[in-house]
Amino acid sequence: MFYMVQMFVNRPESVSDEKWAELRTAEMNYAQDLMREGKFRHVWRVVGDVSNVSIFDVDTHAELHDILQNLPLFPYMDVKVTPLAEHPSGLPEMYAYAS
Amino acid sequence: MFYMVQMFVNRPESVSDEKWAELRTAEMNYAQDLMREGKFRHVWRVVGDVSNVSIFDVDTHAELHDILQNLPLFPYMDVKVTPLAEHPSGLPEMYAYAS
Amino acid sequence: MFYMVQMFVNRPESVSDEKWAELRTAEMNYAQDLMREGKFRHVWRVVGDVSNVSIFDVDTHAELHDILQNLPLFPYMDVKVTPLAEHPSGLPEMYAYAS
Amino acid sequence: MFYMVQMFVNRPESVSDEKWAELRTAEMNYAQDLMREGKFRHVWRVVGDVSNVSIFDVDTHAELHDILQNLPLFPYMDVKVTPLAEHPSGLPEMYAYAS
Amino acid sequence: MFYMVQMFVNRPESVSDEKWAELRTAEMNYAQDLMREGKFRHVWRVVGDVSNVSIFDVDTHAELHDILQNLPLFPYMDVKVTPLAEHPSGLPEMYAYAS
Amino acid sequence: MFYMVQMFVNRPESVSDEKWAELRTAEMNYAQDLMREGKFRHVWRVVGDVSNVSIFDVDTHAELHDILQNLPLFPYMDVKVTPLAEHPSGLPEMYAYAS
Amino acid sequence: MFYMVQMFVNRPESVSDEKWAELRTAEMNYAQDLMREGKFRHVWRVVGDVSNVSIFDVDTHAELHDILQNLPLFPYMDVKVTPLAEHPSGLPEMYAYAS
Amino acid sequence: MFYMVQMFVNRPESVSDEKWAELRTAEMNYAQDLMREGKFRHVWRVVGDVSNVSIFDVDTHAELHDILQNLPLFPYMDVKVTPLAEHPSGLPEMYAYAS
Amino acid sequence: MFYMVQMFVNRPESVSDEKWAELRTAEMNYAQDLMREGKFRHVWRVVGDVSNVSIFDVDTHAELHDILQNLPLFPYMDVKVTPLAEHPSGLPEMYAYAS
Amino acid sequence: MFYMVQMFVNRPESVSDEKWAELRTAEMNYAQDLMREGKFRHVWRVVGDVSNVSIFDVDTHAELHDILQNLPLFPYMDVKVTPLAEHPSGLPEMYAYAS
Repeated sequence: MFYMVQMFVNRPESVSDEKWAELRTAEMNYAQDLMREGKFRHVWRVVGDVSNVSIFDVDTHAELHDILQNLPLFPYMDVKVTPLAEHPSGLPEMYAYAS
Repeated sequence: MFYMVQMFVNRPESVSDEKWAELRTAEMNYAQDLMREGKFRHVWRVVGDVSNVSIFDVDTHAELHDILQNLPLFPYMDVKVTPLAEHPSGLPEMYAYAS
Repeated sequence: MFYMVQMFVNRPESVSDEKWAELRTAEMNYAQDLMREGKFRHVWRVVGDVSNVSIFDVDTHAELHDILQNLPLFPYMDVKVTPLAEHPSGLPEMYAYAS
Repeated sequence: MFYMVQMFVNRPESVSDEKWAELRTAEMNYAQDLMREGKFRHVWRVVGDVSNVSIFDVDTHAELHDILQNLPLFPYMDVKVTPLAEHPSGLPEMYAYAS
Repeated sequence: MFYMVQMFVNRPESVSDEKWAELRTAEMNYAQDLMREGKFRHVWRVVGDVSNVSIFDVDTHAELHDILQNLPLFPYMDVKVTPLAEHPSGLPEMYAYAS
Repeated sequence: MFYMVQMFVNRPESVSDEKWAELRTAEMNYAQDLMREGKFRHVWRVVGDVSNVSIFDVDTHAELHDILQNLPLFPYMDVKVTPLAEHPSGLPEMYAYAS
Repeated sequence: MFYMVQMFVNRPESVSDEKWAELRTAEMNYAQDLMREGKFRHVWRVVGDVSNVSIFDVDTHAELHDILQNLPLFPYMDVKVTPLAEHPSGLPEMYAYAS
Repeated sequence: MFYMVQMFVNRPESVSDEKWAELRTAEMNYAQDLMREGKFRHVWRVVGDVSNVSIFDVDTHAELHDILQNLPLFPYMDVKVTPLAEHPSGLPEMYAYAS
Repeated sequence: MFYMVQMFVNRPESVSDEKWAELRTAEMNYAQDLMREGKFRHVWRVVGDVSNVSIFDVDTHAELHDILQNLPLFPYMDVKVTPLAEHPSGLPEMYAYAS
Repeated sequence: MFYMVQMFVNRPESVSDEKWAELRTAEMNYAQDLMREGKFRHVWRVVGDVSNVSIFDVDTHAELHDILQNLPLFPYMDVKVTPLAEHPSGLPEMYAYAS
C-alpha cells in the first residue's frame, strides 16, 4: 500500500556539525536499504527547503510507523502521513513495481 | 524536472451528473495521454478525499501551467504546485524513467 | 488496520428536508452493515457539531476509500483520514475484536 | 461519558534519554491502570507522529482533567479534548463496555 | 458540569426577514426556558459579531448535544464546544448556583 | 463591562518548581482579591489544558490592561481579550451581580 | 475608550448595483454622523482591499455593538473588534480629542 | 502616507530586567521623537497583550523601513505593515494633521 | 515606490464565458496601459493557479488603491498588498527603470 | 525560468553580532555574484520585516535548490518557493533580460 510521507527536518542549534553529518549518513544508509527492499519507492527534495516528499509502499500502518520512528533523524522531524490509493486515471503499470 | 501537483476538486451543486461524468471521462483521457507521453509520472488518490497527489515531469513551468489549465476539471480545482529536486538519499534509478 | 476518519457534514440549502432524511436513513443502514461486518468499529458524535469521529478497521487503503466514497452523504462531507497503529501503552485486548 | 483526547508529545532537548525512558515507563503504568479501571477505553498511535488518539470514559470534566494533568508526560504535551456523544448510527453495543 | 459553547451564526441570503425574525424569536424563547431551568447559565454577545459566548451547566455530553441541535438557529450555526472544570483559583461560590 | 479573557500559560523549562509554585500562589491570591472586589466574575479551567476562560467586569480597557499585565504569570502567558455585551436572549439577572 | 474595528465587506452577487450604491451612501452618512459626534475617530481604507481600519471612541461595549450592528453594510461584513488602551510611549495629546 | 504597523514584542528569557528596562526607555524616547516630528501619528496598546497598533505617516516605504529597523526593540518584534489610504467616508479633517 | 500585489481571481459560476472573456480582455488592455506608463513593472502567473504576482511602482498608496479598484476583474479578486523597499544586497540598477 | 523565493530570516540569540555581520556580508557577496550572472533578477525587502521577495531566473529546480542551500544565511531561513510563468497580460519585454 502507498503512503505519502512529508518529512520536515529541524536541526537544533545544539547539534554539532559532526553529529549532524553522522546522523545524515546513517539516515541515507537506512533509507537506501529500504529503497532496495522496495518499501521506499520515491523521495524528492522540496526545492528551497529541508523537507522531502516520500512515497512508501508497505503492508501495514504498524510497519510504516516502525520504519519512520527508527529513522536516525526522526527526533528532529515533523512528519505528515497521507494514505494513498490507486487513482482511477492512473495507468496500471504506474502502480506495478518490479520488486 | 519534477513537480508535485496536489489537486483538490470541488464539484458545484449546479453541475449535473451527466455533465460531471462527461468532464471526468475527458479528464481521464487527457491525463492518460500525458502519462503515455511520460509527462505525468505518478498519480495517487488521497484516501477519503476528492483530491490527488500527482508527480509531473516536464521541462518548464510554462509547459506545466499549460497542461494544468487545460485539464477539463481545472475550473473546479484548487491546485498546489511544489517544485521537487532529486534527493541526495535517492537511488539514481528512482529518477530515471524509461521514456 | 485502524483508521480514524473524521467526517464533517455540510448540508447545502438546496437539499430538501425529505431528500436529506432519505440520505440520512441510507447512510445509517450503510454504516450499520459495515459495523456488523466489523469494518466500522466505532463512531461517536462530536458534541455540538454535525461531525463524527469514526474508527474503521479494514485491510487496505483502497478498501477504506471505496467504503467512504460510497457513503450516501459523501458528496456533502469533508473527510479527514488518519492512519492509526497500536500504541505501546495499549492493553492487547484493546485491539482484539471478537469479529 | 466519552471524550476524545489527542496528545501531542514534544520532548525538550534538555531531557536526558534516561529521564525520558523513566517518564515513558511511568506513563505506561499510569495509563494501563486507568485502562484496567475502564476509564481509558482506547488508545491508538498516530502513524509517523509522537501523538495519539485516546478515548476516555469518565463521569465528569473534573475527573478527566485530574487524570490528564497527572500524566507523567503532561508537562511535555499539547492536549486537545473533544467531548463525544453516542452517534445515532452507532450500534448500541458499541457504547456498552463490559466494565 | 460546565461547557463553553461559542455559537457563530451565518444567515443565508435565501432566508427572508420574516423567517429570520421568527427563528430568532423561537431561539430566544427556547434559550430562556433553558436559562430558567439552570442549564444555560451565561450568554454574552461578542461585540461587533453575530456570535456569542455561552456557558451551559448540564449533566452529560448527550444532554448538551440534544439541547444544541434543537436550537432553532442550529442549522445556521458553527458551534465550538469546550469542556470546562472548576479552576483552583476560583472562589467556591463562583461555581455554586442557586438552582 | 464584560470581557472574556482566555489565558494560555507556557512554563519555560528554565523556571524551577519552587519558583513556579511561588508564582502560582501569588497568582491565586492576586486573582482572588479581584474576585472579591467583583472585577473577576468567572474563571473556568479548560479541561486538559493549562489555560482558562475568565470573565472580567471592569469599567475601562485601561483598568483591564493594568489588571492583566500585573498578573504574576503574565510574562508566561498568551492572552486573548474579547469584549462582550449583554445578549438579547439573556435574562436580566444574568448580568446583575450582587456587588 | 478606544476600539480598533476592522471591517471586511463581502458583496454578494445577488445585490444589484443600485441597491449596493444605496447601501454605500447610507453607510457614509451614518458613519459621518458618528464622526461628527466624536465616536468614530479614524477610518482608513486598506490598500487593494474592500476593508478598512477604524478607531472608535465610545463609552461602553454595548454602545459600540449597537453602532456596528446598525451599519447599513453590517449584514455584508466580517468584523473584528480589538480593545485598545493608551500606550505608555504615546504623547498625551495623542489621546485628547477636541470633542 | 499612512501605514498601520502592528508590533508584537517577544522578550527572550535571556534578556535581563535591567537590559529590558533600558531597551524600553530607549524605545520610548525614539518613538516620542518620531511623534513630535509628525511621523508617528498614533499608537495604542492592545489590551492584554504586549503588542500595539501604530499609525505612521511618512513619505516612502524606505523611510518607514528605516524607522522600524532602528527601533531598539526591533530584534524582539514580529511586525506587520498594512498600507492605508484615505477612506471615502472619512471627513477631510481626519487626514489633516497640524504638523 | 514598489508594492508586491498578489491577485487571486475567483470566477463565480454565474458569469458567462462571453462576459468573462470580455472582462479578461478589458483587464489586459488596462494592465498593459499601466505597464507602458511604467507603473506596472512586473507580472508573473503562479503556475497551476488563477493568481499572479505583480510588482507596481507608483508614488502613493492612494494611487495604487485607485489603480487596483478599477481593474475590471477587481470584484472577482482577493488582493494582498505588500510594500517593498530596496534590499541592501540588490544591485542599484535593479531598481532603476528606464521610464 | 522564473521562481519567486520568499526568504524569512530568524537570527538565533546564540549568534554573536560579529558572526551575524560576517554572515550577512558573505550573503551579500554571494547574492551579488548571482545577480551579475543574471540568475538572481530581483530582490526587494519586505517593509518592516527581516524577509525579502526575490525573483530567480535559472534553468532547473536542482540549480535553484543548490543556489539556495548554499546561501550563507540558509540555516537561519524559512524559504517559500513559487514557480512563476509568463503572464498573458505581460508585455514581452518584461520577460526579456539583457543577459
